[in-house]
Amino acid sequence: MKKYYLMAPGPTPIPPQVLQAMAQPIIHHRTPAYEALFSEVRDGLKWLFQTRSEVVPFAASGTGAMEAAIVNTLSPGDGAVVVRAGAFGDRWWEACTAFGIKTLSLEAPYGETVPADRVAETLRKHPKAKAVFCQQSETSTGVLHDVKAYADAVKGSNAILVVDAVSSLGVADLQMDAWGIDMVIAGSQKGLMLPPGLAFCAMGERAMEYAKTAKLPKYYFDFLAELKIAVKNQVRFTPAVSIVVGLREALAMLRAEGLANVFKRHDRLARACRAGVEGLGLELFAKATPSPAITSVVAPKGIDGEAVLATYSKSHNITIAGGQGSAKGKIFRVGHMGYVGEFDVIVALSALEQVLFELGHPVDWGASSRAAQKLLAEKS
Amino acid sequence: MKKYYLMAPGPTPIPPQVLQAMAQPIIHHRTPAYEALFSEVRDGLKWLFQTRSEVVPFAASGTGAMEAAIVNTLSPGDGAVVVRAGAFGDRWWEACTAFGIKTLSLEAPYGETVPADRVAETLRKHPKAKAVFCQQSETSTGVLHDVKAYADAVKGSNAILVVDAVSSLGVADLQMDAWGIDMVIAGSQKGLMLPPGLAFCAMGERAMEYAKTAKLPKYYFDFLAELKIAVKNQVRFTPAVSIVVGLREALAMLRAEGLANVFKRHDRLARACRAGVEGLGLELFAKATPSPAITSVVAPKGIDGEAVLATYSKSHNITIAGGQGSAKGKIFRVGHMGYVGEFDVIVALSALEQVLFELGHPVDWGASSRAAQKLLAEKS
Repeated sequence: MKKYYLMAPGPTPIPPQVLQAMAQPIIHHRTPAYEALFSEVRDGLKWLFQTRSEVVPFAASGTGAMEAAIVNTLSPGDGAVVVRAGAFGDRWWEACTAFGIKTLSLEAPYGETVPADRVAETLRKHPKAKAVFCQQSETSTGVLHDVKAYADAVKGSNAILVVDAVSSLGVADLQMDAWGIDMVIAGSQKGLMLPPGLAFCAMGERAMEYAKTAKLPKYYFDFLAELKIAVKNQVRFTPAVSIVVGLREALAMLRAEGLANVFKRHDRLARACRAGVEGLGLELFAKATPSPAITSVVAPKGIDGEAVLATYSKSHNITIAGGQGSAKGKIFRVGHMGYVGEFDVIVALSALEQVLFELGHPVDWGASSRAAQKLLAEKS
Repeated sequence: MKKYYLMAPGPTPIPPQVLQAMAQPIIHHRTPAYEALFSEVRDGLKWLFQTRSEVVPFAASGTGAMEAAIVNTLSPGDGAVVVRAGAFGDRWWEACTAFGIKTLSLEAPYGETVPADRVAETLRKHPKAKAVFCQQSETSTGVLHDVKAYADAVKGSNAILVVDAVSSLGVADLQMDAWGIDMVIAGSQKGLMLPPGLAFCAMGERAMEYAKTAKLPKYYFDFLAELKIAVKNQVRFTPAVSIVVGLREALAMLRAEGLANVFKRHDRLARACRAGVEGLGLELFAKATPSPAITSVVAPKGIDGEAVLATYSKSHNITIAGGQGSAKGKIFRVGHMGYVGEFDVIVALSALEQVLFELGHPVDWGASSRAAQKLLAEKS
């Protein structure tokens, strides 16, 4: 008997009270009951996105929201800039390209970031660029891009800033209005502690202006059409009802903890995880600011990163993640976002010791706990 | 946000598949569906109790089964011997006394055991004694009594051996038939990984003979009356239906793992836990053979055992247990029985480091993990 542990960078574990809420009999979406639920959830989402704008949900995964961001703000032949320093930066590029957007890549090697002055400089050279697409947390590398600085870089240009906050919403601070971010998209299956299947788009005023003239074809992801209905607490198409029911519960949990505490907790867990990894003599993959959502680790010499996750799974029934794109085989990634506590980090690290030992790597037993525990003992 | 961990020596955590089974709509107990369920469960219980005798469930907690053992085997004024080396030994004495049984206590200090030759000698001196009552695992002290040796000591005497296996069934090997144990009682909320509310009595041939002439008054716990109905897969009174539904699931899990593996797993977890405790320089409370179900630890000098569990709870949302009876305040106890894996032990130990540190005790960070991890790395 081996208990199952979900420690991937999403989907993340679902709290029991959310599972219980979602296990209730389904309600119909064209009813006063759903309208009341949706009204509550709309309020909560604004709070979580730190915005006065509407946050519009779609029944889709995060990539659906990425597509929505593109088709709702751009027209065929428009130019856009993409921050590409990982597999999800690559995804922005792929989606833009699929819609015929002239896409300019600002690349950085996996594990690094693109400095904001490169963004500013690019916009000066390409004043017609209408959007900058980026991640806040690049899930594939475990790097946190400085989207506050990107927002400053975009100011005064022709471009809006669109931030993919899929693995950072409810994990890292993201002040949409205060920082002046034009559009934020996110998904349900990370910091929100919900099953996958719900995506979110929030548009500020400037993005809304772009939306009014955007000519890319759209139907399912038509933000303005959905928004018009959403403010009446209604939906155009059948929503993912049970996830919305779970969302009410998850938002209540986050509110009870308080946003500042939620960010502090994730920061603490991430620091403990990194300390533990370094305590074992392993190298962190993120060279730029690490994401509080994910710790990415360079597989030790002679050990395949894919073997690390396979051993986690086979020997310990724990799901972590490997490298994506060019990092495949070279790294492995542990998630610590959402419904995660300090002892989950201890479990991930202790299992890592066992995994490395099984793969023939010398292990100083307890070294990861020693480093992490010391940090966790500090008053939070 | 702090995840809740139930690490007491019972009730123990319930596996998700058991919770799901129990969440199904209730079925009625006077139906073919219940008879089919009960027939399956009866088979499984015999396998788990390692007996060809019937195992009869009652809707009751473990103490109900203790009472059933007394009232179904003894008559007013009968003499009995009780192995008393902890709070549950004391409970046998209390229950026997309440029913007017002349009870002879074989006492040992908490943390120790009563050797089998004391049992044999007592029965030679008191040849009319009709029963010996004992625990296999004394939950209050974390000691495993040698019930196989007790069974040998009872052989040839006038007394039957009644073993309380509440915290050892599905945890430590207990071969009811092969060892010649006359009666075994147990509960649902420990190794069986179920909610409390179901108790079990199994009687061998000799105990059944005693049952036929036992004159103590009984109605709800009338074993022979219940047995007569049980073999037809029916029940006299309304059973704890959803726990029986969960029991089918729990038995399937135990069968899939295999009894030998179940015992091996618990032994390994217990050894790792003890190694971790000693790695921190703490003293184990059990001086006799330790139970694979529970690790009892002497609170370090100057620290109240009750403060240890209060801090576990307050600072880490983890429930462990304190001392009972004369050990209250002096010890604390961690359970590792039932739905428990190796990383639960690491969590319990890592939390212990944090708790001791918070209470002002010097802590060598990671020392408990170091000791436990080394042991867990051995091929199981």
